Amino acid sequence: MPDTQPQEKAHSPAYAHSRAHPLGRVAILGIGLIGGSLGQDLCAVGASECVTGWDSDAEALAAGIMLGAVQRAADSLSEAVIGADLLVIATPLTAIIPTLSSIAPYLRADAFVTDVGSAKARIVAEAEELIGGRFIGGHPMAGSEESGVMASSVDLFDAAAWIITPTPRTDPAGVETVSKMAVLAGARPRICDPEKHDRLVASLSHLPHVLAYGLAQMAGERVADEWVDLVAGSFRDGARVATSNAEGWTEILLDNRPAVIEAMDGFIVWISCAREAMESGDRARLSTLLDQAYRSRKRFPR
Amino acid sequence: MPDTQPQEKAHSPAYAHSRAHPLGRVAILGIGLIGGSLGQDLCAVGASECVTGWDSDAEALAAGIMLGAVQRAADSLSEAVIGADLLVIATPLTAIIPTLSSIAPYLRADAFVTDVGSAKARIVAEAEELIGGRFIGGHPMAGSEESGVMASSVDLFDAAAWIITPTPRTDPAGVETVSKMAVLAGARPRICDPEKHDRLVASLSHLPHVLAYGLAQMAGERVADEWVDLVAGSFRDGARVATSNAEGWTEILLDNRPAVIEAMDGFIVWISCAREAMESGDRARLSTLLDQAYRSRKRFPR
Repeated sequence: MPDTQPQEKAHSPAYAHSRAHPLGRVAILGIGLIGGSLGQDLCAVGASECVTGWDSDAEALAAGIMLGAVQRAADSLSEAVIGADLLVIATPLTAIIPTLSSIAPYLRADAFVTDVGSAKARIVAEAEELIGGRFIGGHPMAGSEESGVMASSVDLFDAAAWIITPTPRTDPAGVETVSKMAVLAGARPRICDPEKHDRLVASLSHLPHVLAYGLAQMAGERVADEWVDLVAGSFRDGARVATSNAEGWTEILLDNRPAVIEAMDGFIVWISCAREAMESGDRARLSTLLDQAYRSRKRFPR
Repeated sequence: MPDTQPQEKAHSPAYAHSRAHPLGRVAILGIGLIGGSLGQDLCAVGASECVTGWDSDAEALAAGIMLGAVQRAADSLSEAVIGADLLVIATPLTAIIPTLSSIAPYLRADAFVTDVGSAKARIVAEAEELIGGRFIGGHPMAGSEESGVMASSVDLFDAAAWIITPTPRTDPAGVETVSKMAVLAGARPRICDPEKHDRLVASLSHLPHVLAYGLAQMAGERVADEWVDLVAGSFRDGARVATSNAEGWTEILLDNRPAVIEAMDGFIVWISCAREAMESGDRARLSTLLDQAYRSRKRFPR
């Protein structure tokens, strides 16, 4: 093997930047659960020369500084952007494109922009209209039923998949940068095209949220206050994410409408079959349905 | 306050038994997840003069001894029963009545029998046919997607509700004994009639299991092996109990058929409404559905 002389390389100007602060200067726009957690990770590992933060809510930004998620609070969106090598839009879903639109004039020509939105096809298409291949769609598969920077944590992305959704237009160097960022946040980068991403998360994230909301509603209608303490693990876990922000989830589900409707339709067929087997007392049919589902669940990590 | 002289009372023959071993002699029939966990609790606190165990599977019984869930392994069902003050039938649901039928001839006239079945109306009715008011229906609201004695744990019932389902025929002393047992296992006894129990658990336990199986099936059909690692918390938790024993859950659901069908029907109506709101892009309607469900979830413990 050739001697790569890492020490010497580290001293050469071209390498000094990338070795010391592998992501250069990062700006996080939107300091909530995801932006705050990412900021904490990047600050903790010194991934950025300076993690600049911006949020329309000054309190969230102040909390971000206090929690070590942000090193410098920008006074304005444009100020956050100037000089940044990598911008991470971590706003709610509906604000992603408006935010990108606002910052586009201030972006350096070689800066990359990524986001953390839960649905990708529309966002990536609209973002490419605005800034072309410098936009790299991203979606960390981690979250919480809580929201806001106070719920952020340096552990949030540990071992989680961080889906990156390039298109033929996407700059490969940008994909590399965002992958590096995901790794520095403790996650596993996974490359997937936007449409496939949307179909996958419809059943792995969006349908579970719909079912959790529906379960919470059913129990709420049928269980009086004096009995709510009977809940056990299956309800607690099954309906856990029903305390996720309802407005935010309305937008996510609508943004991924065709794939979510397809998954919901599949589910309605399945549960109608199970109901029919129950009604007719068809033990064998019900048992087969549950057993197939059991085998299916076993294919996924616990 | 009068001097109750507890020490003196503790020495009188009538009290010696109840103070030292508050449950007298306990026999647990069926040493699986629930029977094994209960046995561990009762042994740990010295609740019984001797916790006798029986299981049709000799290996499960041996494991029960090894794990400290059983102090004496009975050679036969009848041997387990003779001399017992309290019998706990912790077999799978379909074996409860056959087991009770087998042991009925050997029961002491003053012995109580309880069970841990997940549906109560049918079992309580059939059990009362066999042994009258000495049967006290029970259902600890704790479990695991795992089964078998090797998954049992001394912590399983901690802070869980232990539902006791007396009828007008039930001997109040038996209810007191089973409540005491629940407390000694770390649980909170809750009294509820069998029919109401069945309606409550339909939405708090049975529907969550149905949804978990359905979610696992949907994801299984839509996610190829190479993408299973994308799963995040909402799927993991939502489909966790889909690895519960499918045969056992077929029996539980069928045993509580009317209440489970009612809950499933309610769910189908709800998800169809949500689907319609999605289809028509009715943001306000979808948001209201999710927000109501959110409020409903907030009424229950996390």
